[in-house]
Amino acid sequence: MKAVCLLSGGLDSATCLAYARKLGYECYALSFDYGQRHRVELEAARQVAEALGAAVFRVAKIDLRVFGHSALTADIAVPKGRDETQMNADIPITYVPARNTIFLSFALAWAEVLEAADIFIGVNALDYSGYPDCRPEFIEAFEKMANLATRVGVDGVTRVKIHTPLISLSKAEIVRYGVKLDVPFGLTWSCYDPTPEGRPCGACDSCVLRAKGFREAGVADAALGL
Amino acid sequence: MKAVCLLSGGLDSATCLAYARKLGYECYALSFDYGQRHRVELEAARQVAEALGAAVFRVAKIDLRVFGHSALTADIAVPKGRDETQMNADIPITYVPARNTIFLSFALAWAEVLEAADIFIGVNALDYSGYPDCRPEFIEAFEKMANLATRVGVDGVTRVKIHTPLISLSKAEIVRYGVKLDVPFGLTWSCYDPTPEGRPCGACDSCVLRAKGFREAGVADAALGL
Repeated sequence: MKAVCLLSGGLDSATCLAYARKLGYECYALSFDYGQRHRVELEAARQVAEALGAAVFRVAKIDLRVFGHSALTADIAVPKGRDETQMNADIPITYVPARNTIFLSFALAWAEVLEAADIFIGVNALDYSGYPDCRPEFIEAFEKMANLATRVGVDGVTRVKIHTPLISLSKAEIVRYGVKLDVPFGLTWSCYDPTPEGRPCGACDSCVLRAKGFREAGVADAALGL
Repeated sequence: MKAVCLLSGGLDSATCLAYARKLGYECYALSFDYGQRHRVELEAARQVAEALGAAVFRVAKIDLRVFGHSALTADIAVPKGRDETQMNADIPITYVPARNTIFLSFALAWAEVLEAADIFIGVNALDYSGYPDCRPEFIEAFEKMANLATRVGVDGVTRVKIHTPLISLSKAEIVRYGVKLDVPFGLTWSCYDPTPEGRPCGACDSCVLRAKGFREAGVADAALGL
């Protein structure tokens, strides 16, 4: 059975892909080149897809810079050294407008071409860094829309299903789950703002959440050579 | 008041933009370079946007060919000379998987950046050539999702609204409405499969529906020099 799996190269989406593989899906992994400053994650995604036995790995090039206005795509500084209270107080500048909506729309297009009814996305609503499009109510609404948008939904039999196996897990739980699923964490990439030497900065929200997750799980982060 | 207006260069989206302008919106017109074989429509869109006084016209480049499988983006012949029964019998090969979902997602991203709550799209459910993502129930579901996806929806006050002024009009009614709104029909482009000389083919579904619309409205089609 075919499934489209969104893959960013980070540890959440890698764990999500590993989960889909464990369920026996033939996985079509999809990454996006959207002008992100941390394009190194695309190489991580490719390696993760290969290591986890995805059937196909594809990068869709989309131009989100045409709208500007996010620290991940525009020339705005990535915030550093924030604690969780600060992260959760507001939607941060690293939020890319409507990003998950756009990513899921592309996944839906590919699913339709493949005649696949299953889409996997590694969002989680706990350590979600304040992004509105990581919440369960968003995913449910997307799924309803998807079933009206496409051939798949129109046949009245097949139902598009958006799978979010990590949605209610903490970062530490995701790390522990990933260990069970043999996720190659050493290949994953989380940092929003790599150093000139190509190392994680250690201070952006994504680095902070990752470090916290590994620490709380009591697991060494292979990506940092720890 | 700002609005994002999807603009394909065809007569429906041109009429939709003219309507938004008449309502007094400051219009941000958005077209897509998605590898369509009829890229000539992008130049039509630019001219229409200018003629109707859009504040900004932007083309987002997105790669839908990465998934293939539509006569509009892949090397599959565009069907010709079909009557309406044939058009409505099945979802045609010119349907681009999840296209309106993707287009609306980009419009949503731009709306969020602009802090605009209004999006206009010229879909219509009557002469819709069998596309599932032109139906009112799809639009409603998208709107619900959009209000959960974004900053705009999260503030609890602003509501994203997807405007579909043409949704229940026939092609002839759209033409008549366009005449009232001074739509520059001579600048619009509908054909899916231009001749080598750059003229409309006259036989694809889009040409057939356009010709029928003008004929039934009793209006000459300026684009054909009639």
